[in-house]
Amino acid sequence: MTVGRLYGLGLGPGDPELVTLKALRLLRAAPVVAYPAPEDGDSFARGIVAEWLDRGQREIRVRFPMRPGPPPAAIYEGAARELAAVLDAGDDIAYLCQGDPLFYGSFAGILMRLAVRYRVTVVPGVSSLTACAAAASEPLVRRDETLSVIPASLPEDELTARLAQPDAAVIIKLGRHFAKLRRVLSRLGLLDGALYVERASLPNQRIAPLATIDPASVPYFATALVRRA
Amino acid sequence: MTVGRLYGLGLGPGDPELVTLKALRLLRAAPVVAYPAPEDGDSFARGIVAEWLDRGQREIRVRFPMRPGPPPAAIYEGAARELAAVLDAGDDIAYLCQGDPLFYGSFAGILMRLAVRYRVTVVPGVSSLTACAAAASEPLVRRDETLSVIPASLPEDELTARLAQPDAAVIIKLGRHFAKLRRVLSRLGLLDGALYVERASLPNQRIAPLATIDPASVPYFATALVRRA
Repeated sequence: MTVGRLYGLGLGPGDPELVTLKALRLLRAAPVVAYPAPEDGDSFARGIVAEWLDRGQREIRVRFPMRPGPPPAAIYEGAARELAAVLDAGDDIAYLCQGDPLFYGSFAGILMRLAVRYRVTVVPGVSSLTACAAAASEPLVRRDETLSVIPASLPEDELTARLAQPDAAVIIKLGRHFAKLRRVLSRLGLLDGALYVERASLPNQRIAPLATIDPASVPYFATALVRRA
Repeated sequence: MTVGRLYGLGLGPGDPELVTLKALRLLRAAPVVAYPAPEDGDSFARGIVAEWLDRGQREIRVRFPMRPGPPPAAIYEGAARELAAVLDAGDDIAYLCQGDPLFYGSFAGILMRLAVRYRVTVVPGVSSLTACAAAASEPLVRRDETLSVIPASLPEDELTARLAQPDAAVIIKLGRHFAKLRRVLSRLGLLDGALYVERASLPNQRIAPLATIDPASVPYFATALVRRA
């Protein structure tokens, strides 16, 4: 019997129309669909492609705790075991990923545990990086400029050091780190012109000058776009 | 009469299947299609979606010189004038972009000249960044890691300074700068594990350890993936 193949499918930032033709084809063809989900509630990744599911595919939820910090290795180990059993039984699996599978996300932890034993194909998706720039209609990076992608969770001094250098920066996962980021941007003279983007590509997306944002209103998946003048 | 709307369509790295549903829908609906092209030869962006063209749409080629350095402003000015005339006549335009419209590319120069007078919608696409990681099946960036995107054209000392800091880096537009980059990576102890990716997502894609690559064989659109151990 042929062993199944694992597909990591990038589904883009949230708008179902930002799914690629390839991800849609492979999603429809897979007998088993797996995706990350919070301990309670719905999977964002599944929601992107919900209109194309419910056609008899088996679904595997990989439950991740929603607290800050990396998820326990045991969750990846358990998921890898469950997916390996499906692959051993000869079935292909489509693992659904919001954005891009290899750009911050749970798929890397799955890939690293299964790629040694199984064939894995990664289908890249539209990342939040360019989706935020598109939502804002602002060039992200041009010509010979450099770009940094920086998680807002870094300590304040490190955040300052990393924002001092590049021509353009995208700061991700703002949430409770927003006030700290705002201080750093202000100190570096980068606050004017900094843009805030939330839920890029969704009907309720929010784009505003970062200086106008109430820190108490900022969710985890919010993003800042910063450019040196 | 209603003025036309300009669409900047990200078409992904080259595989036609990596086009999004949204880009394909807008491409098919637009009466006029514009795209960057070299002075001689075919447009890469047009090639990605060639199978969906030739249905009576008017095509506008924006010819860019293929020499290094930023294209002359006159080319953008001329293109903006030509596109503005189409929009003024009431027709929508789909401007085709390899990868993502706002991630290094000619669309930013068009956008900046036309956004003040016309409605512009940007549809993000799969960028070379994540397409290269997918081709290599290697995580690009995880958890709270930082990522830098760095053009290889930077002077050697600046390249060194910018590669010394981040957890992960993608160096783009290698071409004749490859030997310089290799020296810098070697000096920083980053050569082992560095990956070379060329033509990601196309049938003739090439992925290899960077240390094994002949500098004479490296085209402009080649990419290096570097991770700190």
